[in-house]
Amino acid sequence: MNAQLLPVVTDSLPASRKVYHPGSLHKDVRVPMRQIALHESSGEPPLTVYDSSGPYTDPAAVIDIARGLPRMRTPWILARGDVESYPGRRVQPIDNGLAAGAKSAFEFPVQRAPLRARRGDAVTQLAYARAGIITPEMEYIAIRENLGRAAHAASPRDGNAWGASIPEYVTAEFVRAEVAAGRAIIPANVNHPESEPMIIGRNFLVKINANIGNSAVTSSTAEEVDKLVWAIRWGADTVMDLSTGRNIHTIREWILRNAPVPIGTVPIYQALEKVGGVAEELSWEIYRDTLIEQAEQGVDYFTIHAGVRLAYVPLTVDRVTGIVSRGGSIMAKWCLAHHRESFLYEKFAEICEICRAYDVSFSLGDGLRPGSIADANDAAQFAELETLGELTRVAWEHDCQVMIEGPGHVPMHKIKENMDKQLATCGEAPFYTLGPLTTDIAPGYDHITSAIGAAMIGWFGTAMLCYVTPKEHLGLPDRNDVKTGVITYKIAAHAADLAKGHPGARARDDALSRARFDFRWQDQFNLSLDPDTACAFHDATLPKEGHKVAHFCSMCGPKFCSMRISHEVRDEARSAGMAQMSERFRAGGGELYVPLPAQPPGDAGG
Amino acid sequence: MNAQLLPVVTDSLPASRKVYHPGSLHKDVRVPMRQIALHESSGEPPLTVYDSSGPYTDPAAVIDIARGLPRMRTPWILARGDVESYPGRRVQPIDNGLAAGAKSAFEFPVQRAPLRARRGDAVTQLAYARAGIITPEMEYIAIRENLGRAAHAASPRDGNAWGASIPEYVTAEFVRAEVAAGRAIIPANVNHPESEPMIIGRNFLVKINANIGNSAVTSSTAEEVDKLVWAIRWGADTVMDLSTGRNIHTIREWILRNAPVPIGTVPIYQALEKVGGVAEELSWEIYRDTLIEQAEQGVDYFTIHAGVRLAYVPLTVDRVTGIVSRGGSIMAKWCLAHHRESFLYEKFAEICEICRAYDVSFSLGDGLRPGSIADANDAAQFAELETLGELTRVAWEHDCQVMIEGPGHVPMHKIKENMDKQLATCGEAPFYTLGPLTTDIAPGYDHITSAIGAAMIGWFGTAMLCYVTPKEHLGLPDRNDVKTGVITYKIAAHAADLAKGHPGARARDDALSRARFDFRWQDQFNLSLDPDTACAFHDATLPKEGHKVAHFCSMCGPKFCSMRISHEVRDEARSAGMAQMSERFRAGGGELYVPLPAQPPGDAGG
Repeated sequence: MNAQLLPVVTDSLPASRKVYHPGSLHKDVRVPMRQIALHESSGEPPLTVYDSSGPYTDPAAVIDIARGLPRMRTPWILARGDVESYPGRRVQPIDNGLAAGAKSAFEFPVQRAPLRARRGDAVTQLAYARAGIITPEMEYIAIRENLGRAAHAASPRDGNAWGASIPEYVTAEFVRAEVAAGRAIIPANVNHPESEPMIIGRNFLVKINANIGNSAVTSSTAEEVDKLVWAIRWGADTVMDLSTGRNIHTIREWILRNAPVPIGTVPIYQALEKVGGVAEELSWEIYRDTLIEQAEQGVDYFTIHAGVRLAYVPLTVDRVTGIVSRGGSIMAKWCLAHHRESFLYEKFAEICEICRAYDVSFSLGDGLRPGSIADANDAAQFAELETLGELTRVAWEHDCQVMIEGPGHVPMHKIKENMDKQLATCGEAPFYTLGPLTTDIAPGYDHITSAIGAAMIGWFGTAMLCYVTPKEHLGLPDRNDVKTGVITYKIAAHAADLAKGHPGARARDDALSRARFDFRWQDQFNLSLDPDTACAFHDATLPKEGHKVAHFCSMCGPKFCSMRISHEVRDEARSAGMAQMSERFRAGGGELYVPLPAQPPGDAGG
Repeated sequence: MNAQLLPVVTDSLPASRKVYHPGSLHKDVRVPMRQIALHESSGEPPLTVYDSSGPYTDPAAVIDIARGLPRMRTPWILARGDVESYPGRRVQPIDNGLAAGAKSAFEFPVQRAPLRARRGDAVTQLAYARAGIITPEMEYIAIRENLGRAAHAASPRDGNAWGASIPEYVTAEFVRAEVAAGRAIIPANVNHPESEPMIIGRNFLVKINANIGNSAVTSSTAEEVDKLVWAIRWGADTVMDLSTGRNIHTIREWILRNAPVPIGTVPIYQALEKVGGVAEELSWEIYRDTLIEQAEQGVDYFTIHAGVRLAYVPLTVDRVTGIVSRGGSIMAKWCLAHHRESFLYEKFAEICEICRAYDVSFSLGDGLRPGSIADANDAAQFAELETLGELTRVAWEHDCQVMIEGPGHVPMHKIKENMDKQLATCGEAPFYTLGPLTTDIAPGYDHITSAIGAAMIGWFGTAMLCYVTPKEHLGLPDRNDVKTGVITYKIAAHAADLAKGHPGARARDDALSRARFDFRWQDQFNLSLDPDTACAFHDATLPKEGHKVAHFCSMCGPKFCSMRISHEVRDEARSAGMAQMSERFRAGGGELYVPLPAQPPGDAGG
């Protein structure tokens, strides 16, 4: 098995160059960014953008899916001197759903012994942050979040951050302090050294997650690795592998070894496979074994639905859509069948002990999130949120990193309450929401119904937005759906950054708008989130190369191009000395209103 | 030329039946609605939805594009006794850009003499409303807005209407009062009797507009009529014909005679064609002649950029994207070239005299709207808005109906200021916005960047949302783009209605969510905004008929279907008497928080 058999896209994006910014505290830190070159007529330097795509878009990198990515973080992890290598759990047939013969996926060719904390240590970024240590991961993130903006003049910044405290410039110490306070997390399992450090917190850039994974009905290993590379190419900051069905262990191994972004999972899915899909058969022992299996592989964050307590299940009985979280419904079923408290809740401290030994972050699952507008912000949802707040404090006591999952389906007027309650209840731990969808009536377009809610809740303070694809509620997303979901959520996250007044967020908007106004079509495409689509749409009616410099497009044609006319207006106004008039106007006490002529309108000209 | 040569889609939507609700004040009022039948297992009556598609979706209607639609409103218009038929302006070659020979479009086969007010009368719905008259149009609208909800039990209603006053039930008198107050308009030219009355105002359902029209570069008459029928099929409430280039008069005639929705135009486009595309050559005489030409054809509302005053042009000089409105840039160029005040501003009272004689509503254009995030809410934009407020009062003095156009490109944190200023400045005249786009960085996806802003500003009080298609900034939308734009904006408008707490808005969400929870797949598709796409996405992985009743989909597969498990949970909880527990829980003083066990979590179970 080689890269030939598992092809992934490895070319760079148009006009883009991968650059690496070095660390100063940690000399082996090299932070990738993407520089988009602009046409020389612009007189502008290249625009630097955040780059989550990993080595795949670096022409200098040798990509071999069957060997996996370079293990960049290994020296950092070992240098801390607090982990040990050990034989690890033996992979068992049940880990792959007893897949055999033709149904068995190829194993990843390289095996390694896992690392874990030496007895009693916490090897989490939270523990280091609390101890005042600035790790290489933290410095990496500081450089990454700044996007080199110290080198440029300050760009305009306004916005309403709703209480977030976004600094002009991110220092490594700021990263440390935010992690120490629990306001941000760095998902970074010691067994996933291939991952490029990133941070999730409301005082940083808003991040997005893409879900991939096969289901019992469809999909293969090769497709899932391809979806991973495809998702990060377009901007996914983390990826969740939600695979169910057969080969779940093997698919995850291929994904992790080739993932430069943190990988999240929902371990209860695999645990359920191990008991043949019968929720009642789940046990703490099987679940615990699954957590260790996945922690040893390198999963960076676990969704754990420990807030679905027995007492809350009755609150869902009269809902329009009951329990719509897979993990939530599984745990509710277990609780009812045994008529006892959830083992996830009861064993939460033990789960923390496991997570702190590998630095697996918690993504506390909202198993009772609303699945319809009718169920939004109801008693079940908010009861669970209280428990998630309680569990956050327990996790913090164990030096574990935590974020909190949020809804779901919420009409616009109920979105802010979700954010406010989450901040208050969970001590400002990062919020990680699925959408929310702002109406139920558009299956096939739920990337859009949810982008509305996602942009708003991102603005209000959600740190990471979990994408929704056009296939939501209807089927498993394919490659195209993954791209559409990612681009849509990059839009929502960026709109949120702009509205929060994130410094530098507007640089890309302004560069693209200048390109648009100057008819630098190619720059406009290159600066966009999806250059291929922008160019294809333009070329659908005006395909010739000459049209790429035309001072119009097919939308309005040459005579009606407002931008063309506006250039003439500007030139005329400037030559008429109107720029000075404009200055005087602006200087005139900030009065926007120009006094009317004495005559009533319509009578002045006769 | 017949329907064969100009094919349009005429079948009804799946499981849908066209029904007509009769008037009581006016016996010949018959208001169309669409009833979506649900599977008998649901035990639910059909769901009634707003229907803008006109006779095209009525199997009983005979559609002949070459004859046009029935002229339903003619008896109502004539019965008022205030209009007269007259020969009308003669159509001239210049009206069609001197198109000749093969480049000439087929003329619409039927010619009729136009109507206009008898000398001095105002034949506007505003004049009637102020006189205390409830017109058939007003009763039609009252019935249409209610969607028959008087017959049903009240559905749940919450929301935040930001100062709007949305009644539980819309009466014809309420419609009259809102029109009289200028808070709503009924675009209804006496020469467009084919149109089914609709209302635009913030105390009614949020409406959407679709732009169609050829450009000098592409498109034909047949395509534009097809786009019209296609746009209203998916829910466009009004359509603007933004054609430029040749055959502009003829294309508009075909559109109007086949349009059951109000048609808007920007008359300066045709005027500019008449002067060969040279803005400086424009004159009041040519513009005035164009207004009359279009008013006689039946255009229901005119976008008029009378707020682009000479003094404001310098305010745009230092903008990142200058003037991006076509009409705005044309008028700015004229003002500068002649160094004099805009003739649209100076002649505004005369324009009102024309509009009141046909009942053409004003859509006061925002010629200085921001075309980039950088330019949002700037001095130029708000200076123009002050003038639009002044012109609104002038129009009202002439008994003319007015709405106000709004931006454009606005980051989320600056959206509400737009709505608040518009309400204050323009005396609560309806706001009609283009998006706004909440970021500039995603050409190819601007239906999404703008749906975020549109949903929000719709919630805040915008009465009609002008769609943006995926081709915005890149090219002329084709048929697919029109559909995507319309569906996207139906989502934004409906999300806004939900958040405003519009009574009955949630009925469709709830019905669809119940269908989803019950695995009534076909009902779920039929209730959605786009049944074809929803069904196709489902069938992409599970195409068999049997899968339409399966209790899972390809997204999670059977074992992981939360809804299936949730049904089991509900059944078990109910049989265990937990519904009563739930009742007790809810009755317990509204406490959402369930007290914790005495033990710390994680220790309870050993």
